[in-house]
Parts: sequence; structure tokens; C-alpha cells
Amino acid sequence: MPWLNGWMQAAEAARIDPADRGFTLGDGLFETIRVRDGVTVWLDRHLARLAAGCAVLGIPPRFDDAALAEACAAVIAEAGIAAGALRLTVSRGVGPRGVLPPAAPSPTVLIAGHAGPAPQTPVALVLARSTCRNERSPLSRIKSLNYLDAVLARREAAEQGADDSVMTNTAGRVAETTIANLFARIDGAWVTPPAAEGALPGIMRGEVLARLGAAEQPLGLDELARADAVILTNALSIRAAARLGSEAMAGGDAVAAGLRRDLGLPE
Amino acid sequence: MPWLNGWMQAAEAARIDPADRGFTLGDGLFETIRVRDGVTVWLDRHLARLAAGCAVLGIPPRFDDAALAEACAAVIAEAGIAAGALRLTVSRGVGPRGVLPPAAPSPTVLIAGHAGPAPQTPVALVLARSTCRNERSPLSRIKSLNYLDAVLARREAAEQGADDSVMTNTAGRVAETTIANLFARIDGAWVTPPAAEGALPGIMRGEVLARLGAAEQPLGLDELARADAVILTNALSIRAAARLGSEAMAGGDAVAAGLRRDLGLPE
Repeated sequence: MPWLNGWMQAAEAARIDPADRGFTLGDGLFETIRVRDGVTVWLDRHLARLAAGCAVLGIPPRFDDAALAEACAAVIAEAGIAAGALRLTVSRGVGPRGVLPPAAPSPTVLIAGHAGPAPQTPVALVLARSTCRNERSPLSRIKSLNYLDAVLARREAAEQGADDSVMTNTAGRVAETTIANLFARIDGAWVTPPAAEGALPGIMRGEVLARLGAAEQPLGLDELARADAVILTNALSIRAAARLGSEAMAGGDAVAAGLRRDLGLPE
Repeated sequence: MPWLNGWMQAAEAARIDPADRGFTLGDGLFETIRVRDGVTVWLDRHLARLAAGCAVLGIPPRFDDAALAEACAAVIAEAGIAAGALRLTVSRGVGPRGVLPPAAPSPTVLIAGHAGPAPQTPVALVLARSTCRNERSPLSRIKSLNYLDAVLARREAAEQGADDSVMTNTAGRVAETTIANLFARIDGAWVTPPAAEGALPGIMRGEVLARLGAAEQPLGLDELARADAVILTNALSIRAAARLGSEAMAGGDAVAAGLRRDLGLPE
């Protein structure tokens, strides 16, 4: 049962208006929040990032953080989620036809619960060739509803029997995967692309960055090809790459397992 | 009263599921179709472009063109639209959490009517500086629901008291505006950016391209600054630019008026 605009609502009754700009224009953002032992993890950081994203788009807050925290707890309790995830979506709400936002929007706020821990197994990666992230757009640094480039790249992976795709930026360097930030170990040192390269500043990314002592630096495909370990992080998981294209790569397994232990993720 | 998934539905009853991928991921497309004298204009071309876009995204057709044409007519009749527009939206429909599309999606198809002719008045343009179109993504060549870069650019125009923004591509050349294709007259010759530069292949653009005998060629900002006339086209309007930044520009008025007459648009 989701929470929508202030109320828990039966799933079959919860209604997004067909004129909601989230539906018509992808005009909004979301957060994926881990649930561990029936409690959200790093909720304050997720809400801070959401607020920062809303500020970029000019979407005013509709509920304060305390109300959102209460709503998250209600969704978790109603669905009986021990381990799982919440998705918190904010759109600009209903608007008239056209691209220009209404002067006084009434945002749509949705919290949906998903029971079950995320997989932590090694990932077969391919390189997305059909599209790329646009690091010149501020959207590359917020978790907006405009996810179609990632959808295209994820379909490419599926067509090749892989789990996820490495997405490059417009300069042809590594940005992230369709659902995770990427860390590569090259000549013994961990590196990850900075946000300016088109990487979403993930909350788990920040944690792993500090723990690995990784360097934020641009990462070319030629450098990635020299990596002996790759780790993928998002709010729900820390996974090693099992292969990159046709090349097997087992070096990240132990490191990923250690990070998961340290950060309370499932084995 | 919109038409949604096969039925005319009362506006307050029409419901998009909160798990619709159009809402959660911007996973879909749309067409804006002109209505003139109570009849759609170029509906066959719009449906062909929609089908081409769905093929790019791998969204299967849910209704055939005859059913969609009938639905358009029903929306026009119910709303009593003489002059106006239809918006036909197709999303991939409801899906489980995650980026990977379901194997057998059931798309959401929505047709909403909007009465009243679109403005044909001259447009004050600024240059979008906050973001740009990604001509390296196939999304730049289909009318997808990922419209947030245009929303950002349109807000920039509003902040400067202008009507619309010229959007560049990642190379810094002109792509289009947030809602229209752009034609510029430079040294007496009309040019417009090709689709490869990040311009949506608009249906009105195709018509105007032929009538002006325009050349499709990359258009730098320095060249645009030398234009003595700029015309903006979309399915609903052909408008001249009244100014570009601080520079007044009246050269397109007569040409735009002539094209509107030829193409049956309002004065």
C-alpha cells in the first residue's frame, strides 16, 4: 500500500492524474532508500539530496522531512518490510499543457515499499553503445525521472545476456552504469569518475569512496580495460563486476564482500 | 474528457497507476497533433513518427492506427474542439521496480484534447545556458517523455522575461528551442540544424524545410547571431523570433505569416 500526497492508499485506488507533469514530461525526481531491520538507512541524506534536486528544478517542498520520515515508517510498517527498499518520488504535480511549469505547483509525493533484499551477486557488464549520459546537463547530477537513456542502455545489456551496462559521457569516458556508480582498481589504486563526468553523486558512492580511499578522476575506457577489479554501488547494493564484455574479472569479489559487511548489507 | 486505454473517461476518474513507467522513469513518448476545423492535421504522419519512436524504445503497439484515429475523433467531438490540439501519450505501462522493461509490457495510451488555437505571435528568445540537448542520444530524435532539459531551459527564458530558449547541443551548436525547430536566414539563405545535431525531426519542420528551400546544416551560435530572420515551427505554430537575447529581429514576420497562410494556421 503506497503513501500518496499525505495518505496511505490502497494500491488499486492510488491515482496519478494523467496531467501530472511527472507522467507528461518526466518533471520530477526520486530516491531509492534501503530498509534494514524495518528501518530506513541514511534517510536524512536521501532527503537532503532530494531537496537539493528539487531546488535545481524549482520544485517547492510539499511535506517537511519529519512528515516524510513518518510516511516512510508507515509504508514499512504496513507492508511489513524487514529488508527491502522504499522509492520516494516527487513530481511537480498537475500542470496545464506546455513545458513552462505552473507558477505555484502542488507537487505529487509518492512513497512505495518493496520487500526483499537486493541481489549482491557479481554483475556481468557490457558497454552501452546506443546512448550516453550528458554530463553537460545538471540532470546528470540529480536523480530525475528522466531515465530513458538508462532504460536504453539496460536493454542493450539484456540483449547481450548481461546484467548492466557501463554508460559513457559525451566525451566517451566512463560515467556510471544504468543503476550504480562504478569504482575501478587500476595499478592497485581505486578510482571513480567525479560528478562532473556524468556520475550521480550516490550516497553509497560517498561511503565507499571514503572507505576505499578512492580518487575521483576521469576514467577512460582504455583505463577501465586495464582494471583488475570493478565495484558497483547504489543505495541497495555493493556488487563486484564478474566480467566486462568478454573479459572475466574476479578481483572485486573480496573487496565488495568486505564493504557489504562493514556497511550492513546482506551477504 | 480524455481517452485512456480504450475508453473515454471522466477527467477526474482517469487514472495513471503510480507504478506506470511513464511516471516513474519517463519511459514513453508523445505526439502533439493540431486540430483544425474539428479534424486532426497530418495524423498519419504523427502516428508514423510515434510508431518509429516506439520501435526505438521497444514499446509494442497496443492499438492500431485506425483505433487511435477513432479515439482522436472521439476526444475532439466530446470536447467540441474546433481549433486546438490533441496530446497523444504512450508509456510502457506498469512495471516492477527497476530500470529493465518487463518482457511483455502493456502500454498506457492517453489522448487529451486542448481547445483553442496556439499563439502565432513573435517570440522573444534567449540562449539556454543551464543545460543542452544530447545529440549523441537517440532520445534527441524521438519525442520522448524525458523533457526536463527543456523544462530547465524554459524556466531560464521565463526568468529573463522571454518566451522560449534556444538550446544548443553538446558541441555548442544550435539544436532547436524547448518547443520548436529553428530556421535562420543568413546571407539570404535559410538553414536549419539536421536531426544529427539534436533537432527533433518535426513534422511541421519537414513542411517548412521544403517550402523555404532551406538547407539542413550545422548552425553555430556565431552564425545564428548573423541571422536577419529566425522562424520557429512546431505542430501547432509557425512564429517569427522578435528578438534573440537583446537583439531585435523583425525579418521573419512576413515569411512566417506567409507560411501560416499556406499551411492553414491561424493568423
